[in-house]
Amino acid sequence: MNDVIRLLQSHRSVRKFTDQAIAQDALEELVKCGQSAATSSFIQACTVIQVEDKDAREQLVQLAGSQPYVASAARFLVFCADMKRHQLACNMHEADMLCGYTEQFITATVDCALFAQNVLTAAESMGIEGVYIGGIRNQIQAVTGLLALPDLVYPVFGMCLGYAAQDPELKPRLPLDVVLKKNRYDDSDDIASITEYDEQVRKYYRTRTGGKKDTAWSEQVADMLVKEARPHMLDFLKSRGYLLK
Amino acid sequence: MNDVIRLLQSHRSVRKFTDQAIAQDALEELVKCGQSAATSSFIQACTVIQVEDKDAREQLVQLAGSQPYVASAARFLVFCADMKRHQLACNMHEADMLCGYTEQFITATVDCALFAQNVLTAAESMGIEGVYIGGIRNQIQAVTGLLALPDLVYPVFGMCLGYAAQDPELKPRLPLDVVLKKNRYDDSDDIASITEYDEQVRKYYRTRTGGKKDTAWSEQVADMLVKEARPHMLDFLKSRGYLLK
Repeated sequence: MNDVIRLLQSHRSVRKFTDQAIAQDALEELVKCGQSAATSSFIQACTVIQVEDKDAREQLVQLAGSQPYVASAARFLVFCADMKRHQLACNMHEADMLCGYTEQFITATVDCALFAQNVLTAAESMGIEGVYIGGIRNQIQAVTGLLALPDLVYPVFGMCLGYAAQDPELKPRLPLDVVLKKNRYDDSDDIASITEYDEQVRKYYRTRTGGKKDTAWSEQVADMLVKEARPHMLDFLKSRGYLLK
Repeated sequence: MNDVIRLLQSHRSVRKFTDQAIAQDALEELVKCGQSAATSSFIQACTVIQVEDKDAREQLVQLAGSQPYVASAARFLVFCADMKRHQLACNMHEADMLCGYTEQFITATVDCALFAQNVLTAAESMGIEGVYIGGIRNQIQAVTGLLALPDLVYPVFGMCLGYAAQDPELKPRLPLDVVLKKNRYDDSDDIASITEYDEQVRKYYRTRTGGKKDTAWSEQVADMLVKEARPHMLDFLKSRGYLLK
């Protein structure tokens, strides 16, 4: 096992940060790592908004569902899937861009995720840690307004970055045989593996909460998925030029 | 600049491979790195199919639009967004899962991309290189059939992995000011920056092709986006239980 593999396998989300700043040139180095990720057909569809304005940060804390670390992290980035840039490129050549394809939504969203994961890995290699903030999609319309995002630009997730003021345990992942299959999808042994894994997760929560929380993975999933999942999303994305066809 | 940042910034896609194999335990180490990536609300929605069957590989070459490296790479992985597993978890607790939300499509797709980017970074740290294969979405229904993917499991992209038998140049990325914005989205300087960048891209292609190809980035984008983008995608995904609401 080399240092990079050790680094990747020691990832945990960090939500409490010291006051230590991250210099702008370090941040830009991280963003360059993001840009170096693969990009579908060279579209380069990720735009990062670094939110420095204190008032905007406070608003984002609330818009993301009361996540105070959105304000207290040294840096807060919003990763946006951006096809507006391609509209510009098309205009430069008087080409009529065809928009709204679901395929474009996939490529732009995936581009952002590959980009962001490189940013986080690069950060962690520098001793900086962080957490993805999917919560900005709670009130995605307000976030879009706050950051002045035009049509064809949607905020996929945020990311807090800073120096850790906590030392969370690694969270156990699903057994390998559940997530890695040979040649064909076959989940006939998955219930047995998940049942075993459920006990590991219970143990993780018990240790972490001094016995207060004792939830299995499958239980947590079941609790979550009986509820609506940001039901505004499809209409919102359509209103911004995505997922129209 | 540390070794990890150097590694990330030296990424290029590799499509020609030597015959050198990748051991199964090394592959599993890479997949564990994928699993260590952040996952939205702990859903762990990525399943990897490692395609070993030679005939299936040959079929995938064609289904991905005649990409021979899908067969010649030491390993070929298909990363699937998988909410079927969550259906199992809900069944274990007699919970009625609410499916079809666009939000679930986003979280599952992003989960896959974060996972895959960790796999590729880990591979590159071991001297293995590769390329993402979005082309498996060309004939996504046939790919889904070949891999026996059930409803709620969709193949996001493939990945070839192996030892490089080529040494491609780094492909220049957009200027930093185009992809990184402060506080608000503002693209008023983007056309100027893209115009400058276009010349870099032309130069890259000229060098790489001995003068035969000479295309600016904006030109390439404009050529691509006047065409339909996998117009079957939305209907296909709906038929699998995604993007219904």
